Order: sequence, then C-alpha cells, then structure tokens
Amino acid sequence: MPVYQDPQDGRLVEAKALRSWTANLVGRLGTPDDIASDVAEVLLASDLRGIASHGTARLPQYVKLVEAGVMDPAARPVHEKGKAALARFDARNGWGHHAARVATDDAISRSRDVGAAISVVRNTNHYGIAGWYAMRAAQEGLIGVSLTNTSPLVAPTRARVSMLGTNPIAVAAPAGRFGMLVLDMATATVPRGRIEVAARRGETLPLGWAIGPDGSPATTPEEALAGSLLPLGGEEASAGYKGYGLALVVELLTGILGDAAFGPNIIGLFSTEGKSDLGQFFMAIDPGVVDGPASFVNRLEKLIDQLTSAPLIPDAPGPVLYAGQPEAERAARQARNGIVIDREHHESLIGLGERYQLRFPRVRSLTRSRAGGRKTGDLREGKSS
Amino acid sequence: MPVYQDPQDGRLVEAKALRSWTANLVGRLGTPDDIASDVAEVLLASDLRGIASHGTARLPQYVKLVEAGVMDPAARPVHEKGKAALARFDARNGWGHHAARVATDDAISRSRDVGAAISVVRNTNHYGIAGWYAMRAAQEGLIGVSLTNTSPLVAPTRARVSMLGTNPIAVAAPAGRFGMLVLDMATATVPRGRIEVAARRGETLPLGWAIGPDGSPATTPEEALAGSLLPLGGEEASAGYKGYGLALVVELLTGILGDAAFGPNIIGLFSTEGKSDLGQFFMAIDPGVVDGPASFVNRLEKLIDQLTSAPLIPDAPGPVLYAGQPEAERAARQARNGIVIDREHHESLIGLGERYQLRFPRVRSLTRSRAGGRKTGDLREGKSS
Repeated sequence: MPVYQDPQDGRLVEAKALRSWTANLVGRLGTPDDIASDVAEVLLASDLRGIASHGTARLPQYVKLVEAGVMDPAARPVHEKGKAALARFDARNGWGHHAARVATDDAISRSRDVGAAISVVRNTNHYGIAGWYAMRAAQEGLIGVSLTNTSPLVAPTRARVSMLGTNPIAVAAPAGRFGMLVLDMATATVPRGRIEVAARRGETLPLGWAIGPDGSPATTPEEALAGSLLPLGGEEASAGYKGYGLALVVELLTGILGDAAFGPNIIGLFSTEGKSDLGQFFMAIDPGVVDGPASFVNRLEKLIDQLTSAPLIPDAPGPVLYAGQPEAERAARQARNGIVIDREHHESLIGLGERYQLRFPRVRSLTRSRAGGRKTGDLREGKSS
Repeated sequence: MPVYQDPQDGRLVEAKALRSWTANLVGRLGTPDDIASDVAEVLLASDLRGIASHGTARLPQYVKLVEAGVMDPAARPVHEKGKAALARFDARNGWGHHAARVATDDAISRSRDVGAAISVVRNTNHYGIAGWYAMRAAQEGLIGVSLTNTSPLVAPTRARVSMLGTNPIAVAAPAGRFGMLVLDMATATVPRGRIEVAARRGETLPLGWAIGPDGSPATTPEEALAGSLLPLGGEEASAGYKGYGLALVVELLTGILGDAAFGPNIIGLFSTEGKSDLGQFFMAIDPGVVDGPASFVNRLEKLIDQLTSAPLIPDAPGPVLYAGQPEAERAARQARNGIVIDREHHESLIGLGERYQLRFPRVRSLTRSRAGGRKTGDLREGKSS
C-alpha cells in the first residue's frame, strides 16, 4: 500500500483519542463494544501506517452502509464447517474487520495444533487494510497471509471492462531487529486513489496504469476514471497477464473457495444497493513446527540485512527497503506525535460526530514549510468542539 | 511461463519416445527407476506445454551436476519433522523433481485429513516447471501451490546487483470444462531466456526489463545479460517494488522457512562449484472440506466463462485467456502430433545419447511456410541412429 505524503493542509490528532472516538462512533450505530473496538483498531492501524485511503477516512462510507440497512452492525460471524487446517466462517453481513479478526485468531489457534491453518470467510464486508490480519499472526511469531476480493475495478489482459477487483495480497512475518516483514499490495499497478490524485494535480498518466472506456490506453486521469485499472505489469507486452493471474488466484482463494460473490458479480465499492458478500482468506503458518523459531527469525534478519545493504543504482532515492518498512516507520512516528489527516478527512469526521452527538477530538493544524519540513500551528478544537 | 513459438528449424519427436529415452538416460546416471520416471515425467510435461526452457533441453546441465559429483542421483528425500499441516523434508541433495513429487504427494495426503497441508523441502535441486506440482494437486480435485527459490538473477528495487531469484509462484485448481486453472509465473518481468532471445534477434529492450552492471536501465540485451533482471512491475515508478515484494515472500516461504540457502547466498544456476541447497514449498487445499467439490468447480467455471467472454480492447490479439490455457492447448496438440524441439536442443540430446550409449528416438524435421503454417518433412533418424 502506498504511504501517502502528509497533506499540505493537515491536522494532527492524537492516535488514542481518534481510536476512542472511532470506537464510540461505531458503537452509536448499534455495534456491540467488542466489535466496535476491532473496527477502531484496524482503521487506526491504517491511519498510523500512513494508508490514508483505508482508515478513518472511510468511516462516512461504512456509516452509509449501516444507515441504508445493507450491513448489520451487530452481526457476529459463525463457524460453519471445516477441519483442523481449513474452516469456513459466515460473517452474516456484519463488520468485515471483526469477522476477519475472529477468523484470523481461529486460524492462529489451529495452526498451533497442526502447524498451519486457513480460515475463509463469506458474506462479509470491506475489512480495511489486508496487512493488519497478516501482522496479527506475525505478532504471534507466525507467518500470516490475508487476501480479499473487492469490487471490480481491473480489466483482465485484453478485456475492455472491469471484471476483477484490485484483490490485495498481504503476507507478514516476524523479522527480529527489523520488526516485521509486511507485504501488503494490490494486484493492480496503481490503486484508483492514485488516479484520483493525478486528476487533482492535472497530471497525464504513464502507459500501463489504466485504460479508457473504449479499451485504449488512458492518457488522462479522466479517461482512466471512466475506464478500468490495469493489473500489475500493465499492458500485455510488459507482462500484465501476471498481475491478472495474481488477481485471479486471489479470487480463487476468496470468493470461489469461500462461496461468496466473485469477480464481476461483486457490487460496486461501498454501494448501498445491496450487501457486499465479499470473500476473504486468512492463513497462519507456525515456523516453530519445522525449526527453532529463533532460527527462522535469524535467517530472515540475515536476508533483510543483505538486501538493505546492497549497492545502489545511480540516483536511488534512498537505500533498498524491505516490504512494510516505510509503513512501520510512519506508524512509530505517528504513534508518538499524532496522526496527520487532511482537511477534507477532518471535516467529514466532524460532520459524522455532529450527526451522532460525538465531539471530535482536539486537533493541531499543520503548515508545511517550503523546504518540505513541517510546522505545527496552534492547538485548536475541531469545528464541532 | 511463456509458451515459446515453434522454432524455424524444428524437429518433431513423439512424446512417449522422448519420455522413455529421458528416463533411460537419467537411469544411466545411477538414478533408481522410480526416481528417473519422476524426472522424465516433469521434463516431458514442460516440453509438452511449450516451456522449452525447462524441459529436456536442460538435461545436459543436470547431467553435468551428477558428473561433477555435486548432485546425488540416487538420494531419496526424508521426512524430517512436522505436524499434520506442515512438514519439512530433506531432499539429501537428490533430484529436485523427485523430492518435490514426494513432498507434494505427502501434502495432498495430509490435506485429506485436515483440509490443507504444506510441505517444505530443503537441500534440493532445480525441479523443472513449478506448475507441475500445483497441477498434481489440481488433478486430485485440490487447489495446489508450488514455490521455489532460485539462483540470484533479480535486483531488488533500488539495488544495482542481483540478490533474489526469479522465484516463481505456481497455483492450480480444477476448472471443470475448462480443464485447469494454472498460474505459473516468475516474479521478474521477463525470464533471462527472453533477454537471450532478444540478443539473438538484435533487439533493443523496453524500460523495466533489466538494468546493466552499473545499475542504469539496460537498453541492449548485452547490458542486461551483464547486469540484473528487474522484478515484475519494472522500475520503482511502475511499481517494481511489488514484484520485489513477491520475490521476497517466495524466499520467505522456501529458503527461510525451509532452512535452505536463500537470496544472494544461492550458488549460480547449474553451477558445479557446490550443491544448490534450494528451498521449495508445496501446499494442497481441499475445497470439499468447506463445500461440495462440484460447487467449487461450478463457481470457477462460471468465473472463467465470464472472463473469457469479456468485450475486447481494440486490436486485441485474441480473446481473454485464463492462466494455463495456452500451455494446455499446446500440450494437447503436442501429445497428439509430437513435441517440437529446435536443432540445438536436438543435437545436444543426440550428443548425450552418444555418451551414454542410448540412441535418440526418431524425429521428423519441420520447415515453416512463409505464412507461418507448418510443413512436416521426411521422417529421418537422429544423427546417432
């Protein structure tokens, strides 16, 4: 997932206060406290890691689903069937974050017995960042995998229309002094949000990002937004069929294996026309079963050490990174200093708070200096406070 | 994997005869019959599917490893430790194809008990096409996964040198009237073989395929062959860090999890300077545990039907395909009509046959018409016959 740059006109809000406010707001929708706590935890993790597109900025859309009656805020997932290493859950159209947390914990627990375990979930909703569930397993010393299908936004190689979602792949593992290895990537070249940013900036698009509605390469963001994203790799000539294949494999392991909606049959993102019926896949693998756990971590530390000290290409913008490193650095900084949200995001949450009689926490306004540094302005209250 | 075009100056050899000759040749190296049969089966599957780079054309290199004493042709893999859903095997530096077949069958068998099962293998060798092992599970009605690490050929994003292999990902599933879904892809944009083809054709290279030894984008095949491949996605700006992340995850699940060699520490491809000590990962998932097996296949058939009937982009070279379709079509044709191998490949096998007193089977020579059609010439014996 891209770590978004701090906005020009940002506000700084304390993580703990935003988490608590989010849990309270979710509770006002009729969500039991423990479920609301899961939702807040996952959304805050996204904000902390700098994935502004998948955190509390999505709250107005989740609220609309509940208000429209197409998502049940009080539903609890049920274990339907399975064996020790593969189980299926029905989320009963409740919060995706909670069902995914429960299914992940169940896979973690079963992996302790048999060495590895999978949970698939059907009849569920958008679950925030895929990486959170993989990281939950990694925090337990396990390798974690998290996959979800999503609303169709990507055109398969040669097709003119969107047939598959950006179907993310997330894998995490404990990495000793490097913290965690966390790959969390959409199987499209760029997310739709990146095209929206290009539209605001008046940029043209490189080949391989998207096609227009007639299937020709999109050169402007407007064509792309009316058309489809391209899978990772871009056009057929640059191996876009590999990204298409990866998106198809994610669909296989989520919607198809889990008996949820799949591919072009999934409803539009945050559409209130019906329930989402997404499919999700979680796996935990216990390296200790085939090894001393420290040996596994020692080997991974050595590999990351070798990768990050590799000699650089000319004009490299920095050292070689490992998956999850920029997000972890951002999370550590924002846990200390507060989370930066942009003006639009801030105002939408103030609006939600007003509707549900829940005063939004204090924020500090930020102004960026020309040199790219950051100045913190006066402490000020949110509009509703 | 790319399906290679038929060569201009090809020969046609019957699949059954080539399989039998291959098994005999492998046997002459001191390989027990059942192991030799596994090796021949996997190499022939590659030739049949049109993956000329991974089939019998590699025999001279495997033979060199045995002759140099760096691979043990008679070794049998041993189950070292594990639980029902995760087991580790030591291949004892024997044929990779055999150890991988044994480990796959073990995972298939355990998945019947617990729903899903993984085997990791260490101390092993090159195993041919990754997809064969995933397909073996799919033939049993299961979802199959096969991963291997490989010799360093790919530069991580921002790095100037090769630190990771082309680390392939293979996933297969039974697809009813569509046969099988088989994704089998390297996590580099293109394989090294594609650069070699460009060198023979005198082509220049597009951005995103490779870098030269100084880390600048390679514009000629010569620069690329002296430098490194780029991960899927290409440069950093076109999301090459995603391909790097995928290669790293394959390394995590093979060399790191399996306690084999990993990343830059792996010896060069088919080097006789020491043993390969590759790591491999196999998984079988039984959809019947969470579903009726027919329902799973019915849903996958419906998805593939929707994808392959999607409206096309302008100038599409054909309909939308699903992963594994071109390879399956080639395999069906070549099983009927014979396998096409090129002159160089043919001569190298004749040479091997001469050294091991094993007459190479009869071939027919092919000449391609200007229109791209194919003419079969006279039946003629190989040089050694």
